[in-house]
Amino acid sequence: MKPAVLLLSGGLDSATAGALLCGRFELHALSFRYGQRHAVEIAAARKVGRHLGIRDHRVVSIDLGAFGGSALTDRSIAVPRRRGIGRGIPATYVPARNTIFLAFAAALAETIGARDLVIGVNVLDSSGYPDCTPAFLAAFRKTLNAGTRAAAGGQKFRIHAPLVRLTKAEIIRAGVRAGVDYALTHSCYDPGRGGLACGACDACVLRRRGFRAAGVPDPTRYASVGRR
Amino acid sequence: MKPAVLLLSGGLDSATAGALLCGRFELHALSFRYGQRHAVEIAAARKVGRHLGIRDHRVVSIDLGAFGGSALTDRSIAVPRRRGIGRGIPATYVPARNTIFLAFAAALAETIGARDLVIGVNVLDSSGYPDCTPAFLAAFRKTLNAGTRAAAGGQKFRIHAPLVRLTKAEIIRAGVRAGVDYALTHSCYDPGRGGLACGACDACVLRRRGFRAAGVPDPTRYASVGRR
Repeated sequence: MKPAVLLLSGGLDSATAGALLCGRFELHALSFRYGQRHAVEIAAARKVGRHLGIRDHRVVSIDLGAFGGSALTDRSIAVPRRRGIGRGIPATYVPARNTIFLAFAAALAETIGARDLVIGVNVLDSSGYPDCTPAFLAAFRKTLNAGTRAAAGGQKFRIHAPLVRLTKAEIIRAGVRAGVDYALTHSCYDPGRGGLACGACDACVLRRRGFRAAGVPDPTRYASVGRR
Repeated sequence: MKPAVLLLSGGLDSATAGALLCGRFELHALSFRYGQRHAVEIAAARKVGRHLGIRDHRVVSIDLGAFGGSALTDRSIAVPRRRGIGRGIPATYVPARNTIFLAFAAALAETIGARDLVIGVNVLDSSGYPDCTPAFLAAFRKTLNAGTRAAAGGQKFRIHAPLVRLTKAEIIRAGVRAGVDYALTHSCYDPGRGGLACGACDACVLRRRGFRAAGVPDPTRYASVGRR
């Protein structure tokens, strides 16, 4: 099988993207420590990687916290709760995050001879981040094909975003069919002790709605389970 | 003055690019520790930053060495000497380096409210890296304008590459007019003890040829000064 680089956060989406493509590519997973509030993401990514049978899983430390500007990297900015999804780009937006992540994925791909990158972004049931859109991914692919030795050699990069136009419920149903164990995944932006999901941030709200709409039991333990 | 982010390596080119634009923008400098063979680059970048009067200079550590694949990040790959410039992309190419650097520059720019990035790449007297070309920069700009909150707000990114179509001699003459002290800069890919330039790698060869063609005395001390 051809190699491909999977961006694996430990969340629901990247686990599903990996499960959908692990029969087609030999996946090499890449995760980031980027000054997140929650190291629990990395632990989940490790578990998901093993679950998907991925043997090469690299965790790269990058210091986005040095820049600040996001509720996910700067402790002085609060994670919004119950804010109402769909009202602009939220405080959890991390400046240029997917641009940085995909750039590292491309570097790894060049090194191991891969030309395929896999990312679990989606635009429908998302927080409205601009770096999760088809237009962004298409522009980034052109950047790689203009600016890498790999592409100069003739074989162009492809970016696979199998979830980009699915709802959260469709993602969950596709993942269940592909055998994803969602109990291993972690979505919460602001977990409490023991990694307990808050139940109220955008990521928790989208996750809970998704399981309910999919008619699939949500294996997540939430600290707060108010009606959404 | 408007803020802008300058990618500052401590080399001849980025010092010149900074000098050419420091009257037009309030420059914020960004340098990287990326597993280079030579920490001497960072020391030079610090000196150049002070020389340019830059008050905000950030150094971000990123672990490109974890991927390998380049003579600049992997000690098992030799830096080529006297290889003849212009024969393909050399072993000193670092996978996706400028894509990664510009992605971090964009993250910093979003955080400080800048929309202008400055980079000292040039295509004429260069080693032939694909991520130094106008086509690459244009594609990257489109990626930022598709994928950032900043650009979604209406104000688009610009990437300034004032040297992109200059020869090394033209760069040096422009820098001398702008008051650059080239004794502070460092180009060598493989310096010896005390940061002494080798005189024989691509970067040294291009630098030496550039000073000679510009008719400007080269302030660099080289370990080897064979005829080029």
